[in-house]
Amino acid sequence: MIRVALDAMGGDNAPQVEIEGVAQALRELPAGFRMQLVGRTADIEAALRSHADVDRKRLDIVEAPDVVGMGDKPLAAIRGKPKSSIVVGLTLQKKGESDAFISAGNTGAVMAASTLLLRLTPGVQRPAIGTMFPTAQQPVLVLDAGANVDCDARELVGFAHLGSVYARDVMGRPQPNVGLLNIGEEEEKGNAVVKEAYQLLRRSAGIHFLGNVEGRDIPAGEARGQPLDVVVCDGFVGNVVLKFYESAARVFVALMNRASPDILQRPEMAGVLKVLDYATYGGAPLLGVQGVSIICHGSSPARAIKNAIRVALKAVESHVTQDIGAEFAQGGAVA
Amino acid sequence: MIRVALDAMGGDNAPQVEIEGVAQALRELPAGFRMQLVGRTADIEAALRSHADVDRKRLDIVEAPDVVGMGDKPLAAIRGKPKSSIVVGLTLQKKGESDAFISAGNTGAVMAASTLLLRLTPGVQRPAIGTMFPTAQQPVLVLDAGANVDCDARELVGFAHLGSVYARDVMGRPQPNVGLLNIGEEEEKGNAVVKEAYQLLRRSAGIHFLGNVEGRDIPAGEARGQPLDVVVCDGFVGNVVLKFYESAARVFVALMNRASPDILQRPEMAGVLKVLDYATYGGAPLLGVQGVSIICHGSSPARAIKNAIRVALKAVESHVTQDIGAEFAQGGAVA
Repeated sequence: MIRVALDAMGGDNAPQVEIEGVAQALRELPAGFRMQLVGRTADIEAALRSHADVDRKRLDIVEAPDVVGMGDKPLAAIRGKPKSSIVVGLTLQKKGESDAFISAGNTGAVMAASTLLLRLTPGVQRPAIGTMFPTAQQPVLVLDAGANVDCDARELVGFAHLGSVYARDVMGRPQPNVGLLNIGEEEEKGNAVVKEAYQLLRRSAGIHFLGNVEGRDIPAGEARGQPLDVVVCDGFVGNVVLKFYESAARVFVALMNRASPDILQRPEMAGVLKVLDYATYGGAPLLGVQGVSIICHGSSPARAIKNAIRVALKAVESHVTQDIGAEFAQGGAVA
Repeated sequence: MIRVALDAMGGDNAPQVEIEGVAQALRELPAGFRMQLVGRTADIEAALRSHADVDRKRLDIVEAPDVVGMGDKPLAAIRGKPKSSIVVGLTLQKKGESDAFISAGNTGAVMAASTLLLRLTPGVQRPAIGTMFPTAQQPVLVLDAGANVDCDARELVGFAHLGSVYARDVMGRPQPNVGLLNIGEEEEKGNAVVKEAYQLLRRSAGIHFLGNVEGRDIPAGEARGQPLDVVVCDGFVGNVVLKFYESAARVFVALMNRASPDILQRPEMAGVLKVLDYATYGGAPLLGVQGVSIICHGSSPARAIKNAIRVALKAVESHVTQDIGAEFAQGGAVA
């Protein structure tokens, strides 16, 4: 029985949206898991009252009276609010009483608390946020999406290993193709860090390296005629592109709806909507810590919470944490 | 009479697309300019034969027998092919025989030749490529979009000045709002370079600095409730986002057309298409050189060439080169 802890106080519309997401997950996902709702018991109970369909035997409420705000400084929040839903939820996992943690709360606080409490996988220099980008083909995992603003070449190589294991275990890509995000295909392109990373990746055992890829290759989902599975970049570039994409998708949808309010409801538009809807993928794993920690948007709708639960279950079932441990223990990391 | 030199051999479908673009420009844009078609005379004459409507009295053909290929190394191409359309076209401007240059050819070669032949504006450390991003509101100028892979904080401040003058002169924004592209709004966010640039921009006279902006603010066309006119970033990030955006727009259009082939032809979709069609803006100026040099996509359709001619005319008429010179002479650059 997999135990998934959810920060019930995390998102912009917590705990209502979180509870609705849990209700959807319990209804729609295969059984074999139970939920741990972490937060203010009274608020959670109140939100549960409008979900009579939820099987209370499949969930526990774990009291956490403190709430970390979206504007709180991460480290100060973790230290100053030890009874917050973020710290309490991750502590459950640290103590072996939970298998995964999901939060739509303060991203910086979730990252910091995950690193402090779960600890880095030995051999990992820095954890990375992996985000799924919808494409014209299969989705592509882009990492890092914001955990690290400055990265050296070895850290980028580490991200390639983290992403490759995640793509194999969770995304079902037996031999994931990895691209290095750059401003041109040729190996001499880019800044000093990506040039060095290119040379290191070319020689990395266990990485199926496609070479440099460009911004255009992400939405296309392929590079040089091969499907793209993992794209490696520093967290500055990854974060800018992620937020740009989400906003562009929102703008497209808003303009479409303004132009013709019924159009996106039509069945033939499903393929278009798929590319525009980040809620499909639910959450972004923090990779490189010894546990499962999934970060969701503050504005996640219930469906995104449900899908984050799905991702968390898949991560636990596939033993991605252990496989990352093995990858780095076997010298997967750059020595 | 403004004289616009066009690299007739530049794009992927040169010279046909270039000549078609010139035909559109002569037909649709206000008179008061003449075109200089630079390239192989025989090829240009052949392409002109299918455009009987073109007023030959409004164009000159300037022979340039060498052609720079898309894969040629920029500096080697400039030195090894002194009779190329790029070198010949820019030399016209250097000698005072032309007012603007437009090319859909090898971007690196156009940048290098523009810098070598037109020379940097005194006080400018590095030239920048300015690209127009369509948004939900007015278009936003993002620079640098790829001329510089590594930038220090002072160079980013220089881009803010280049972009502000261009926005005033060419985009018609009397007091342009400038944002610094970052991964969060707070001043302590980002890597060392953007943190330093933030502090310098805050104190820069003549820059209306909105503060940090995020990837999401570009498609929205606003930040903190104010319209966004200029976004400053290094050429690595700018290039990745630009190519990502163009590709996402192409994927979206392809999916729409597959889902419902007639839909984008409908009049109510004009607003949606506007956001998806980079050809509207035609070309990207190389800012910070002493002249007008406009870089177009290799795959530019004729309409993009026509719009690049429109941009070139506006740049010449508004004296943007002189105004940039004055901005940097007056200490607009960081001392």
